[in-house]
Amino acid sequence: MSNQVVIGVIGAGRIGKIHAENIAYFMPQAKLKAIADVNLTPQIEAWAKGLGVQTVTKDPALLFADKEIQAIVICSSTDTHSTFVVEAAKAGKHVFCEKPVDTTIEKVKAALDAVKKANVKLQVGFNRRFDHNFKRVRELVESGAVGSPQIVKISSRDPAPPPVSYVAVSGGIFLDMMIHDFDMARFQAGSEVVEVYAQGAVLVDEGIGKAGDVDTALVTLKFANGAIGVIDNSRKAVYGYDQRVEVFGSKGSAQAENDTPSTVKLSTEAGVMGDKPLYFFLERYKEAFIAEMRAFVAAIAEGKAVPVTGEDGLQDLYVALAAKKSLAERRAVKLSEIA
Amino acid sequence: MSNQVVIGVIGAGRIGKIHAENIAYFMPQAKLKAIADVNLTPQIEAWAKGLGVQTVTKDPALLFADKEIQAIVICSSTDTHSTFVVEAAKAGKHVFCEKPVDTTIEKVKAALDAVKKANVKLQVGFNRRFDHNFKRVRELVESGAVGSPQIVKISSRDPAPPPVSYVAVSGGIFLDMMIHDFDMARFQAGSEVVEVYAQGAVLVDEGIGKAGDVDTALVTLKFANGAIGVIDNSRKAVYGYDQRVEVFGSKGSAQAENDTPSTVKLSTEAGVMGDKPLYFFLERYKEAFIAEMRAFVAAIAEGKAVPVTGEDGLQDLYVALAAKKSLAERRAVKLSEIA
Amino acid sequence: MSNQVVIGVIGAGRIGKIHAENIAYFMPQAKLKAIADVNLTPQIEAWAKGLGVQTVTKDPALLFADKEIQAIVICSSTDTHSTFVVEAAKAGKHVFCEKPVDTTIEKVKAALDAVKKANVKLQVGFNRRFDHNFKRVRELVESGAVGSPQIVKISSRDPAPPPVSYVAVSGGIFLDMMIHDFDMARFQAGSEVVEVYAQGAVLVDEGIGKAGDVDTALVTLKFANGAIGVIDNSRKAVYGYDQRVEVFGSKGSAQAENDTPSTVKLSTEAGVMGDKPLYFFLERYKEAFIAEMRAFVAAIAEGKAVPVTGEDGLQDLYVALAAKKSLAERRAVKLSEIA
Amino acid sequence: MSNQVVIGVIGAGRIGKIHAENIAYFMPQAKLKAIADVNLTPQIEAWAKGLGVQTVTKDPALLFADKEIQAIVICSSTDTHSTFVVEAAKAGKHVFCEKPVDTTIEKVKAALDAVKKANVKLQVGFNRRFDHNFKRVRELVESGAVGSPQIVKISSRDPAPPPVSYVAVSGGIFLDMMIHDFDMARFQAGSEVVEVYAQGAVLVDEGIGKAGDVDTALVTLKFANGAIGVIDNSRKAVYGYDQRVEVFGSKGSAQAENDTPSTVKLSTEAGVMGDKPLYFFLERYKEAFIAEMRAFVAAIAEGKAVPVTGEDGLQDLYVALAAKKSLAERRAVKLSEIA
Repeated sequence: MSNQVVIGVIGAGRIGKIHAENIAYFMPQAKLKAIADVNLTPQIEAWAKGLGVQTVTKDPALLFADKEIQAIVICSSTDTHSTFVVEAAKAGKHVFCEKPVDTTIEKVKAALDAVKKANVKLQVGFNRRFDHNFKRVRELVESGAVGSPQIVKISSRDPAPPPVSYVAVSGGIFLDMMIHDFDMARFQAGSEVVEVYAQGAVLVDEGIGKAGDVDTALVTLKFANGAIGVIDNSRKAVYGYDQRVEVFGSKGSAQAENDTPSTVKLSTEAGVMGDKPLYFFLERYKEAFIAEMRAFVAAIAEGKAVPVTGEDGLQDLYVALAAKKSLAERRAVKLSEIA
Repeated sequence: MSNQVVIGVIGAGRIGKIHAENIAYFMPQAKLKAIADVNLTPQIEAWAKGLGVQTVTKDPALLFADKEIQAIVICSSTDTHSTFVVEAAKAGKHVFCEKPVDTTIEKVKAALDAVKKANVKLQVGFNRRFDHNFKRVRELVESGAVGSPQIVKISSRDPAPPPVSYVAVSGGIFLDMMIHDFDMARFQAGSEVVEVYAQGAVLVDEGIGKAGDVDTALVTLKFANGAIGVIDNSRKAVYGYDQRVEVFGSKGSAQAENDTPSTVKLSTEAGVMGDKPLYFFLERYKEAFIAEMRAFVAAIAEGKAVPVTGEDGLQDLYVALAAKKSLAERRAVKLSEIA
Repeated sequence: MSNQVVIGVIGAGRIGKIHAENIAYFMPQAKLKAIADVNLTPQIEAWAKGLGVQTVTKDPALLFADKEIQAIVICSSTDTHSTFVVEAAKAGKHVFCEKPVDTTIEKVKAALDAVKKANVKLQVGFNRRFDHNFKRVRELVESGAVGSPQIVKISSRDPAPPPVSYVAVSGGIFLDMMIHDFDMARFQAGSEVVEVYAQGAVLVDEGIGKAGDVDTALVTLKFANGAIGVIDNSRKAVYGYDQRVEVFGSKGSAQAENDTPSTVKLSTEAGVMGDKPLYFFLERYKEAFIAEMRAFVAAIAEGKAVPVTGEDGLQDLYVALAAKKSLAERRAVKLSEIA
Repeated sequence: MSNQVVIGVIGAGRIGKIHAENIAYFMPQAKLKAIADVNLTPQIEAWAKGLGVQTVTKDPALLFADKEIQAIVICSSTDTHSTFVVEAAKAGKHVFCEKPVDTTIEKVKAALDAVKKANVKLQVGFNRRFDHNFKRVRELVESGAVGSPQIVKISSRDPAPPPVSYVAVSGGIFLDMMIHDFDMARFQAGSEVVEVYAQGAVLVDEGIGKAGDVDTALVTLKFANGAIGVIDNSRKAVYGYDQRVEVFGSKGSAQAENDTPSTVKLSTEAGVMGDKPLYFFLERYKEAFIAEMRAFVAAIAEGKAVPVTGEDGLQDLYVALAAKKSLAERRAVKLSEIA
């Protein structure tokens, strides 16, 4: 179609491939024209050709220079995110950027400024907002069915810890893992976090402790609207990816339970056995990844606001940095100390 | 209290003890004055004294003769039920009789006639109507929440088969076991059964087959109001006592699941494990036994109709005999052929 | 890829479109080369072009004549199925045929003969076998986890009845709707049906009754391996598409519950409210349609047997015809009377 | 029986009546001999006589003086608890004392000293440990099924707030309400709390705020064994009494959900509706109250240790006071600052 949104993707790692395939297969309103990856391999080239991509390159500059390309999807390594956001904005492209935009406030602000100046859209990849379960909770909150939110509870546990080498450069559990939950908490509460208190422990892997991080964490939140919240994270839930949210309010409570591969229960002498949760984020958030990209494409096509903004990314970063500070200083930290 | 309903119990076996204890402990409106058991033992005497019972005897006639006693609870062996109903009625006592009143139509009718002539109440021990789950289903049906009933489904499976010696004299699976479900089906449908078709198989214990019975059965029902139904029975569900009911209608469906000892779920690498159903009828219907006796006492105290009548027992018997005939003759049997 | 399975689709109605899109989008091992539809419209042409289809035609003969095409997917109107199966087989093409192959035994047998003679594969479109829930039940049965199957129970209810005009030419509820459940019952029991008894009622729409059909049905089954089964169908479950299966056996029971759009529960003063089942077969069996086509393509690519054969389709037809006869003659019907 | 444990109850309010009736009805090993209530009414006298109690008095001293009485159950107002514990201990009686023993550390210690000196047993009324669900979680933890506990999560919400007048003298939400959850957390973690951080808000009733308390609270806990925990409390959950516990560990997670009046689900066009949780503690913990008293009687009869000790009560008080201090001072508080 002549009015397709033309897109270029930077970074063809795990998440880049997901976005590229989703655009190619599921979005008739979009056209995937180009893919850039600094570590371009023949495998990536073959895969990209299979998707019908015209430009496959090591050089992202080719994408910024391509007049036809309207939007850039940034899936490269985290340290390159903010630079590419700035370059894409300067080139007049809309931007979808994987989370986090950056791990420092200055760079995120610089990226947001560039976006603002260029008057382009920036959507940050907080895919969980598009999950069928969490979106349903939010709808119930927004509809007034739970009344005014009073307590927001999130459990978010990975099936297995990443390598210690990854942890060492990840920015730590709050910036790397719990930032998703901070975003979810803000999304569900419909309010900004004003204070956090963090607890952490090394219970899963001593190596993580030696790398200066914790693998088990519990953060309490205070929201501007008076609600309170709590998030727990573990790097290792042996039963799989545990992703639950509850919003309790003056008129009721909305609770999202885990998704499972099937609804089957086996009753035997040993008990009644059901499925474990879907194993990891690729399965659990498969549809959410599609939905977030559809929303981005639609925002461009229809000239609407994106559903997760750069400002959201910045606020989530503030909360994560506050949590980090709280754990380090063993005290509650106000967001105003950070922002 | 001076206006307590004074009760005598005949038969101090398993079910007789339950009723006696329930009357003694949980019914301030009733007074358990007498217990008769033809096989009276010192243990039974001690237990009865512990309940504060005045008269403990081998001779049921003493109970019929006692002017103070207003109601007789019959828990003796099945072959004595209808005789005791008649004698109790003649003595002007209200009667609670364990199911079945008898396994022949003539004797049941004779008992019902005696009750009618004496103008006393007769409640038959279909305790499951008083179960919190099944009562709730019925309430939803009666309230109109499911619309007009169209399909009634009942699963009713025992945790373990009775001894073959018991099966041989039990009257068979339809009269002994599924009669509870026939009563439940009539109760839930709010309509009489007009035709049945029975299937049976020997899949649990060959000895049951040799004794001339089946241990697995499936009966379809046609109700006067147009609804249809199905009941499945097994003498052996290894995971425990499986007791479920569903009423599907024009506006929705009400489904009762099993009760469990706890709500706890254990999530591990192996899966998510929950409790088995409560093991057998003593646990599952503990509260139902109390509720049915309370209802009987209240009916007497307040001069109201009993909730499960002798006519119910007779209709249930018709259905059971029709099912038996259907299985024997491999064809659908109309209730009009039996009644 | 050079070794892709090249496919032509006949019929671009609702189900034809689903299969065509699934092949185009989700099956790198297959190539959708041609689409034929006798009622070809500009809309269909545009849609087919969008899928990258080379040949879009009114004439199925072009597909049979195309040497490159290895397999034909038949999604045209039911009355044309068996003819196209025969023609495809004669042309040496493998065949995927939507259910039913035909509504008469003779024509199905003729189609099966043609397939056999041509030594091509024939897979019949019983998609539910590929559903994640029902497949999981079958895996548990096959693994021995439930022991030997004793009772198979299926509830299968549509959210809304089809137009009476459709019902009039559909072959009736057993051939049109319950045939899916007969196939599921045989699949789960791992055994052939030997006898059926059918009950039916007109409770949803009197027009269906006037058209000579029932809208509510209950069929009991006897299997060759001794197990028994029951299926209930309703043309109208107001709460959505109700698709449940239970296999009860000597070691336990496996039960598949409905799928829902989300896992969210809303607790309020009114109660605890969860989602209705997914509304209809397009949502519920979305993944199953992909999985069945993948299995067909893989069978061709790898020279393996197809998972649902023409013989399955024939057996399912026998059961459906037996059920029809049973309802008409008010008696149990043996499959040997039909086959 | 001659070897019954002879008991006197002090206080015939709501909880006193429950314990008295439970002893009278459900504990053949115990004999309820005496009841004392400073506000003795004819109603209480009649009720006590109905239970077969010999001594009904305004004067607790009569119970301490009665040589036959072996154990005292203290259900009087909180401000009298520790005094009665001391007097009972001095009289050589075993003691069951409703929680809390006192709201000041000094008085609790004095009571514990008296108990120790007299070498009698003291059980504190933390009934929830005896709840079927929470006991099951604990069993799974103790059995090693969840591995080493890492995160303990408790939701505990009342259906409706108490009168503000009550709140004003209750000692506040931590001493009055969350103390049950502190005890549960210690019980489940199998470890002592070493640090707490409390958040609180007035979201339910401004009057509670004016009385100097909060009505919504979230407390995070650090345990001696390294585990972390979180408890949330609300004075008002419109859907009923919300009582859930989760213990997450290295091998899995055990989760207790709420109890409901029935298992029935109603599926309609509006959704799938289930029951709300049991409304309040009298229903939810009905069996737990019986079980805790049985355990107390058994401990005396069999010369065993009581399952919830005075030391438990003291530790729970420490945690509650630490939480109160934490909220007041907006900082984490170590238990060592309190104890």
